[in-house]
Amino acid sequence: MVDQLSLMRELSIKTESKIVMLVLDGLGGLPHPDTGKTELETAYTPNLDTLAQGSVCGMTDPVMPGITPGSAPGHLSLFGYNPLDYTIGRGVLEALGIDFDLRDGDVAARGNLCTIDQNGIITDRRAGRITTDKSASLAELLNGMQIGGVEILVEPVKDHRLVIVFRGEGLSDSVTDSDPQHVGLSPSLIKPRIENADRMAYIANKFIEKATELLAGKYPANGLLLRGFSHKSKLHGFKEIYKLDACAIASYPMYRGLARVVGMTVVKTGLTIVDEITSLKNNYDRYDYFFLHYKPTDTAGEDGDFAHKVKMLEYFDQVLPQLTALRPEVLLVTGDHSTPSSLSGHSWHPVPAMISGRFCRPDAVVAFNETACLSGGLGRLPAYHLMPLAMANAMKLEKYGA
Amino acid sequence: MVDQLSLMRELSIKTESKIVMLVLDGLGGLPHPDTGKTELETAYTPNLDTLAQGSVCGMTDPVMPGITPGSAPGHLSLFGYNPLDYTIGRGVLEALGIDFDLRDGDVAARGNLCTIDQNGIITDRRAGRITTDKSASLAELLNGMQIGGVEILVEPVKDHRLVIVFRGEGLSDSVTDSDPQHVGLSPSLIKPRIENADRMAYIANKFIEKATELLAGKYPANGLLLRGFSHKSKLHGFKEIYKLDACAIASYPMYRGLARVVGMTVVKTGLTIVDEITSLKNNYDRYDYFFLHYKPTDTAGEDGDFAHKVKMLEYFDQVLPQLTALRPEVLLVTGDHSTPSSLSGHSWHPVPAMISGRFCRPDAVVAFNETACLSGGLGRLPAYHLMPLAMANAMKLEKYGA
Repeated sequence: MVDQLSLMRELSIKTESKIVMLVLDGLGGLPHPDTGKTELETAYTPNLDTLAQGSVCGMTDPVMPGITPGSAPGHLSLFGYNPLDYTIGRGVLEALGIDFDLRDGDVAARGNLCTIDQNGIITDRRAGRITTDKSASLAELLNGMQIGGVEILVEPVKDHRLVIVFRGEGLSDSVTDSDPQHVGLSPSLIKPRIENADRMAYIANKFIEKATELLAGKYPANGLLLRGFSHKSKLHGFKEIYKLDACAIASYPMYRGLARVVGMTVVKTGLTIVDEITSLKNNYDRYDYFFLHYKPTDTAGEDGDFAHKVKMLEYFDQVLPQLTALRPEVLLVTGDHSTPSSLSGHSWHPVPAMISGRFCRPDAVVAFNETACLSGGLGRLPAYHLMPLAMANAMKLEKYGA
Repeated sequence: MVDQLSLMRELSIKTESKIVMLVLDGLGGLPHPDTGKTELETAYTPNLDTLAQGSVCGMTDPVMPGITPGSAPGHLSLFGYNPLDYTIGRGVLEALGIDFDLRDGDVAARGNLCTIDQNGIITDRRAGRITTDKSASLAELLNGMQIGGVEILVEPVKDHRLVIVFRGEGLSDSVTDSDPQHVGLSPSLIKPRIENADRMAYIANKFIEKATELLAGKYPANGLLLRGFSHKSKLHGFKEIYKLDACAIASYPMYRGLARVVGMTVVKTGLTIVDEITSLKNNYDRYDYFFLHYKPTDTAGEDGDFAHKVKMLEYFDQVLPQLTALRPEVLLVTGDHSTPSSLSGHSWHPVPAMISGRFCRPDAVVAFNETACLSGGLGRLPAYHLMPLAMANAMKLEKYGA
């Protein structure tokens, strides 16, 4: 069976046309109990609705019905990689999230500063969610150890979260976690999952031992838990698969990191969507695919703030004409997953999507929201089919078979 | 994982009921810019619409969202073979297209008469699209060589196109093309892809060498390019999989050939749809599955002639009652792919489909077209699911599991 990426590699051709993929993070929502309308249905979004009228619309499943995706699988799917086949390790993801320059061969792990009692039992896996400032000074304390020829880099992320990077020759990432993921237990000894991982397990355990000595007396952050040991993913990138020169515009580091993983060029941008559109304009001539990431919809959803998510959607809608004015051959608008305010987090609900372009066969959908998109011409489809559709609509795919 | 064909083989039973699969080639279209209506939405098709009212309707993807199928994958999918798992080589397809009687072990290749300059560089891959008459006389010149015990048959197709068939013992089809697919290059040396293909590569190169000698002075057709070396596919056929005695009625040779590949009996028919329906009537008692192929819709779409595609749909609609009068237990109407007039070629857009039968659970769709079928009971599905649905509706499938 030919998989989608091989098929894309076989059929894709280089053309002049441009694709803009606009990702409104956490786009989908759930109805407000008072009105029965979702955030997107509540928001006044005349520009998105006008765009929907000339587009083909639908609902996408980022991973599979019922599965709530993290940001990495959500985006991999949008980029055309089936997230059940392609994964990014937790450690690597955390490193991407702070723009850490991971090198080939580095093994990254997610670290949690934690609280351990006098019997070595974990009483708080997050060390009372200590401030980023405090955890930054503890990261500095732990940073730069050398164990058996391996350099160990420790960087703060946010609150109790750290990134630990092991840099040296021939390190395996096939080791178990020390984080048992529950309080009331001792940290686990890290073990090799495969034969060649003995050294990595030894170094990681030695590092935790030394770190625990250094953290003694730093209550509540007197322990360290590691999980998600992983190498930088080696995915085939956009250039190889789609023959696209792809440009990523995202104000949050993790999304820049994800874009780098699939071979996009990350360009400079400011924090707001207006800054991002300015970056898009400035780089428009140099690339033929643009991933533009809008974060505030997700943040509002995560905060459980229905009204603010509505506002962030309306704000986005106001700037949309600046983007459509560029007249890309294909404009795709969707989200990486749903983040309903009522759940204050990611969810499994399908996500509205629309593809605007000259050859898109518009459907009868006249508004861009969860209910309207249900009857759209795309039907309900896995999100990883959006890239082939965008490519087809940009006339960048040849015929399959004779 | 049980694949669909194995499941069909396990569950299918022989019954008296009859299935008619009506394929309107290139059925789906795109809206006319002036009216916003597709060819099928523009056409006055009261009989198709009436049929839709008692049918279950939907939209199918022949291969996958975004993928534009050739005729072979489009039809394989309609016949229930996932076209990403089952392919037919270019050479074989070309041979099927002229009703060439390919034997087991034959290796067929597509040939292009081409123009080569004094330095051996290809200047025109199609020899100025010379007439079929001229290319027929050149085919005759090249036909019948014997190289190393292998007979080489050369047949004209149309314009600059030829079919080359290598007939002998133990020939492999795992060799590369000589056609570099671009002008400005020399023809490539044919190379074995696997160890056992040395002999085939040698014979093919020798044939090209001799053919080039014979074509010297026949400018603009002074060269020959070969591609798509392939054996006749060995697919399990309709009898084995579905227990169907299947009959194909198609006025164009390629579709007859595709039907033969899956074990259908091809019966004689005239050129028009009326001729085809007459053939259907004449053979109705002898078979329990009928594939009936209507070509003019695709031809009009390929010609970019919106009005003519509308007319060809209307013409078909007028004769439809002759077919429904036969009262097959299951009547399935669909296309092998879309051919929008505005694209003058095949496209990736999903294709309307309807299944009429006593047990089909009709939906609310009251017209047969792209927009109406979107809300049909079949939803949007891969086209290779149509055969199991037709079988089920004809009560030809047993229960799966206890």
